[in-house]
Amino acid sequence: MSNSFGKLFKLSTFGESHGKAIGGVIDGCPAGLELNFEAIQAELDRRKPGQSKIVTQRKEPDQVEFLSGIFEGKTTGTSIGFIINNTNQKSKDYADIKDTFRPSHADYTYTKKYGLRDYRGGGRSSARETANWIVAGAIAKQLLASIKINAYTSSVGNITLEKSYKNLNFNLIENNVIRCPDESYAKEMIQRIQETKKQGDTIGGTITCVAQNVPVGFGEPIFDKLHARLGKAMLSINAVKGFDYGSGFDGAKMKGSEHNDSFNTDGSTKSNLSGGIQGGISNGMDIYFRVAFKPVATLLQKYDTIDKDGNQIEVQGKGRHDPCVVPRAVPIVEALTAMVLADFYLLSKTNKF
Amino acid sequence: MSNSFGKLFKLSTFGESHGKAIGGVIDGCPAGLELNFEAIQAELDRRKPGQSKIVTQRKEPDQVEFLSGIFEGKTTGTSIGFIINNTNQKSKDYADIKDTFRPSHADYTYTKKYGLRDYRGGGRSSARETANWIVAGAIAKQLLASIKINAYTSSVGNITLEKSYKNLNFNLIENNVIRCPDESYAKEMIQRIQETKKQGDTIGGTITCVAQNVPVGFGEPIFDKLHARLGKAMLSINAVKGFDYGSGFDGAKMKGSEHNDSFNTDGSTKSNLSGGIQGGISNGMDIYFRVAFKPVATLLQKYDTIDKDGNQIEVQGKGRHDPCVVPRAVPIVEALTAMVLADFYLLSKTNKF
Amino acid sequence: MSNSFGKLFKLSTFGESHGKAIGGVIDGCPAGLELNFEAIQAELDRRKPGQSKIVTQRKEPDQVEFLSGIFEGKTTGTSIGFIINNTNQKSKDYADIKDTFRPSHADYTYTKKYGLRDYRGGGRSSARETANWIVAGAIAKQLLASIKINAYTSSVGNITLEKSYKNLNFNLIENNVIRCPDESYAKEMIQRIQETKKQGDTIGGTITCVAQNVPVGFGEPIFDKLHARLGKAMLSINAVKGFDYGSGFDGAKMKGSEHNDSFNTDGSTKSNLSGGIQGGISNGMDIYFRVAFKPVATLLQKYDTIDKDGNQIEVQGKGRHDPCVVPRAVPIVEALTAMVLADFYLLSKTNKF
Amino acid sequence: MSNSFGKLFKLSTFGESHGKAIGGVIDGCPAGLELNFEAIQAELDRRKPGQSKIVTQRKEPDQVEFLSGIFEGKTTGTSIGFIINNTNQKSKDYADIKDTFRPSHADYTYTKKYGLRDYRGGGRSSARETANWIVAGAIAKQLLASIKINAYTSSVGNITLEKSYKNLNFNLIENNVIRCPDESYAKEMIQRIQETKKQGDTIGGTITCVAQNVPVGFGEPIFDKLHARLGKAMLSINAVKGFDYGSGFDGAKMKGSEHNDSFNTDGSTKSNLSGGIQGGISNGMDIYFRVAFKPVATLLQKYDTIDKDGNQIEVQGKGRHDPCVVPRAVPIVEALTAMVLADFYLLSKTNKF
Repeated sequence: MSNSFGKLFKLSTFGESHGKAIGGVIDGCPAGLELNFEAIQAELDRRKPGQSKIVTQRKEPDQVEFLSGIFEGKTTGTSIGFIINNTNQKSKDYADIKDTFRPSHADYTYTKKYGLRDYRGGGRSSARETANWIVAGAIAKQLLASIKINAYTSSVGNITLEKSYKNLNFNLIENNVIRCPDESYAKEMIQRIQETKKQGDTIGGTITCVAQNVPVGFGEPIFDKLHARLGKAMLSINAVKGFDYGSGFDGAKMKGSEHNDSFNTDGSTKSNLSGGIQGGISNGMDIYFRVAFKPVATLLQKYDTIDKDGNQIEVQGKGRHDPCVVPRAVPIVEALTAMVLADFYLLSKTNKF
Repeated sequence: MSNSFGKLFKLSTFGESHGKAIGGVIDGCPAGLELNFEAIQAELDRRKPGQSKIVTQRKEPDQVEFLSGIFEGKTTGTSIGFIINNTNQKSKDYADIKDTFRPSHADYTYTKKYGLRDYRGGGRSSARETANWIVAGAIAKQLLASIKINAYTSSVGNITLEKSYKNLNFNLIENNVIRCPDESYAKEMIQRIQETKKQGDTIGGTITCVAQNVPVGFGEPIFDKLHARLGKAMLSINAVKGFDYGSGFDGAKMKGSEHNDSFNTDGSTKSNLSGGIQGGISNGMDIYFRVAFKPVATLLQKYDTIDKDGNQIEVQGKGRHDPCVVPRAVPIVEALTAMVLADFYLLSKTNKF
Repeated sequence: MSNSFGKLFKLSTFGESHGKAIGGVIDGCPAGLELNFEAIQAELDRRKPGQSKIVTQRKEPDQVEFLSGIFEGKTTGTSIGFIINNTNQKSKDYADIKDTFRPSHADYTYTKKYGLRDYRGGGRSSARETANWIVAGAIAKQLLASIKINAYTSSVGNITLEKSYKNLNFNLIENNVIRCPDESYAKEMIQRIQETKKQGDTIGGTITCVAQNVPVGFGEPIFDKLHARLGKAMLSINAVKGFDYGSGFDGAKMKGSEHNDSFNTDGSTKSNLSGGIQGGISNGMDIYFRVAFKPVATLLQKYDTIDKDGNQIEVQGKGRHDPCVVPRAVPIVEALTAMVLADFYLLSKTNKF
Repeated sequence: MSNSFGKLFKLSTFGESHGKAIGGVIDGCPAGLELNFEAIQAELDRRKPGQSKIVTQRKEPDQVEFLSGIFEGKTTGTSIGFIINNTNQKSKDYADIKDTFRPSHADYTYTKKYGLRDYRGGGRSSARETANWIVAGAIAKQLLASIKINAYTSSVGNITLEKSYKNLNFNLIENNVIRCPDESYAKEMIQRIQETKKQGDTIGGTITCVAQNVPVGFGEPIFDKLHARLGKAMLSINAVKGFDYGSGFDGAKMKGSEHNDSFNTDGSTKSNLSGGIQGGISNGMDIYFRVAFKPVATLLQKYDTIDKDGNQIEVQGKGRHDPCVVPRAVPIVEALTAMVLADFYLLSKTNKF
């Protein structure tokens, strides 16, 4: 198991979907940062279940409790321990999957790897873990107050918002439950999710994230390039199948004469197909990337699968699940981005003599 | 700087394009592995410059010299030091870029981050570094003899080999200089690169990689999921702009009922949109992923850019460069895959009591 | 801040002396270990305050609550989160040291390093943290059931138990409150501590620790030698000023012909001045080492010191403090030893092909 | 194997006593440091064999060759690769120990742990490795130009220089071959070593090290306390059996009223039994510590031991060996101290918001 994230700004986490609590330890946050606790809770509220009709109806207040590392409202430089109690587990929903391996879940691989598993709600493999990331990410955002990080839903199924982020107003992201800053696309996406939900089915989507005002010099080549660390962070989110940044997969179709970003005399570039990163280091331009999410594996349908003894069985999916992971993943993408940038911010202080 | 890769099977590297030598230290390779040195050199030959008409004409024998960690042909468990001498530097090709920031290179960001840079051939940001990875990857392959890793060129510009890897014969990969196992696509791709080269231009492409016979249980959630580490590894290669695995970005368009991989009674799955990984852990099915490469930034054309003082200048690109990075990147993708798998192989020995 | 301990068997901790709770995350404990919770609590009871007349009278039940990583009594391979609530803080005892730097405490250095500090009870620098180590160490002991780890008080002030550990009965360690397995020395030591306490003074001492049945092969040279990691662990305990193992400082006075440990034909050695470790790797013989503790800095006397503005002031020491740290440090030394050995046990699984 | 040292200022090494070369990679050295190469070589000369009558007569120029990371005399922020060729191996001296386990060497433990070993000159377990440390330490010293690090021989066998370091003139350390700044003690020590050598025997000793002008704030509690990292570093040196700092083992005999260091109004302390470190963090006072070295295990005498099959055999020690490791270890102690401090210097840049 590897439950730590980051090198200097480091989060270590624990917690299962249906245990008493989840939580973590944030190590390396500089001392003297005055925390805005409302802002932290607001980020948790953006992620929490039950917030709208298109997400899971599990009700969790997701109230974070800080246990250390903060004194008179400021970080002290010591490790910040926190917990979030689980209050609305319905573990009996899971009693009948105890001996079942659900398709495209982690049931089979966890059982084979560890010899046993906490089957209740997916145990450690549940996305409930991401609430921990929100806490650390919210603190990272406050550490990097001058950097602006905005993520939004850029596609649901085959409904794709084709506009560049530059033509969008990030202030509109929270105006709808799908977190898409274009109202007409948002409506379409929400409708698609509701249709899908009615069928007991689920659907995939993509999130685009933009980080602005990142100083030149974040990223540590050769093996901790900024985009490589962002990619690893995003691929840590359940259901993520792909990551690209700047020109991304489209860039692979282009010629160098089209793709190169010419310089302005101030060091900024005329185009930004590089996505704000050159040689693994931020160049001061906007950083932007895309994250692909597969459809949630849990269907509220009948399906065939096997039990732990290899018997073919039929299962009726139940429980409270997201028909589409994307709207709740928007703040998670932002949180991880903030944590990666916070780490590189600290590392960048040691680059020059 | 972060020049180490891996946790237990660990490579630490050094070297600039035009320094005396590049090299590294491989730490954590188990003792008692009998090394096939010809196989290591053969991998280096697959990557080396000058091997065909469609790659850079720099001539480097890329002969690896092992300095430690091996005794009477076997690894001893101690760290394996190695160097590869640079023999064919033409540093004067670079004298006139000394004070120039080339577009979409790392010149600008390295200079801003570190205050100075070794400008000769891109210095540390050169893909010459990848020869080091080949050495470690070749050893990792020998450590994992039962696992088969095959990468191949799956697109050049907009020429895309649409076939599934299952319909390809990996034995044909090395039959052509573009490393595409479909001869008719290969021809088209080679022709496209040659046309591009004539124009002094460059072109992007993608590589697909398949790892077969990977045991169940590789990968360390939450933060070292197998695909997250593969993604980070791939995004460490110069010019890579994107990574996806299994259904990838296409999966984001699908419904759960289409995407889920039903089990056979032996635990294998009927489909494999998961790409051989569930919950961050290998499930015994084929692991496959795609890597997107942008076009090489160095053009053999005239272009406008700026110098270190912010003056607009015109530069004539010269030197010996790859018109398309993809054919030489094929063994690099394999090497990194092997290193990631070797690390998880060692880690997996400690999962159970 | 660096609040993580270990490489594969890893503990990350948090908590201040007078915060709500202390706790931590244990990562990397293999799955399938059936835990004896009574044994864990018993170790905490050995360390807890208020257990005898010669230790601090703060009353803390030190009840550990596990929040994750355990299912139906067994470890699951996922991270084990735990907390220990603080219940008996008397923070007002500390109100008058808010602006004071106590001599030979961490008040001055924490304030200078971090710009602020949680002054209540020493905050993060308090030995209260060691309760977290006990929890992880107790689990490590269960993981290494065949290894026997025994620590005991070997000196208080200038009262030194001169006998070799081989002439002691470890079953007697818990028979007295000083944890010295020689009853007559124990009495003397206890009396010395009581006299010292009456004077409002404190006194130093040493602990000897013996690990038996450690398999050959624990330790990872060059930079994670077994004794180097043990030494670092011991030097992490508050008040520790020195560490030596095997012949230790006395060995520096000897000749090679006296010091070398001749082999028996089974690979064991006739003498064991090496202390069970050769070249940084356990050799199967008993591992033994000594740890030196300075006298506790908090005196219940009047003393001169300075405040944060550099004014000379007189302070009357109060609060509840240990007159001698050694008796409560015995289980701490054992816990850290177990954690170090658990880490090397896991690492040793990857040494050979 | 664990062949890396440090967190931000990091050295990864390789090399066996009788391989082609030893060397390493220094990662994380800030960019823009102008290197004094003569000073680096001078440190290597202080450690090199054959420098006087009281050390081994193996002749090695120990000329370091830098391969990367330096451009026009300055560090570039990229990894610094270096090698030191082995030129004077006499491997045949070792042919007859091929199947022998020498007492108190690492022969037995390496063979058991790894299944095989490079027996020539002790292979990786040889102190030849320490030349690599000297290189990195010499660069660390230049990075920390304002900090003064002086080590010296404080005892050989039972000849102990009882004076405090404050009564010694560090400029005299290099005036004699034993590196003791008191000329009369130096003479006695040298004579003792020569007598011992004549007997084909070896002798232990201690080194004291003093670091002055260390700023307040180096050290990262809880688990990377400054003294804990120094202790671990020292215990990584072959033959080291003990480490203490400040009052050390003597402090364990004292009372708190004697041991506490009262403050002056400027935050300095009147006494310094703390050894310049409080709570794991430097307090601005002199840091001083002692390191105990056992006698070298290789005797030029006949001795009994076993071969790999467990047969009792008689061996005649030969080869070129140090009768006392201490004089050549003085620069090694300094180098490791510099590396530890360099790491904490970089880490300390990230403590405050």
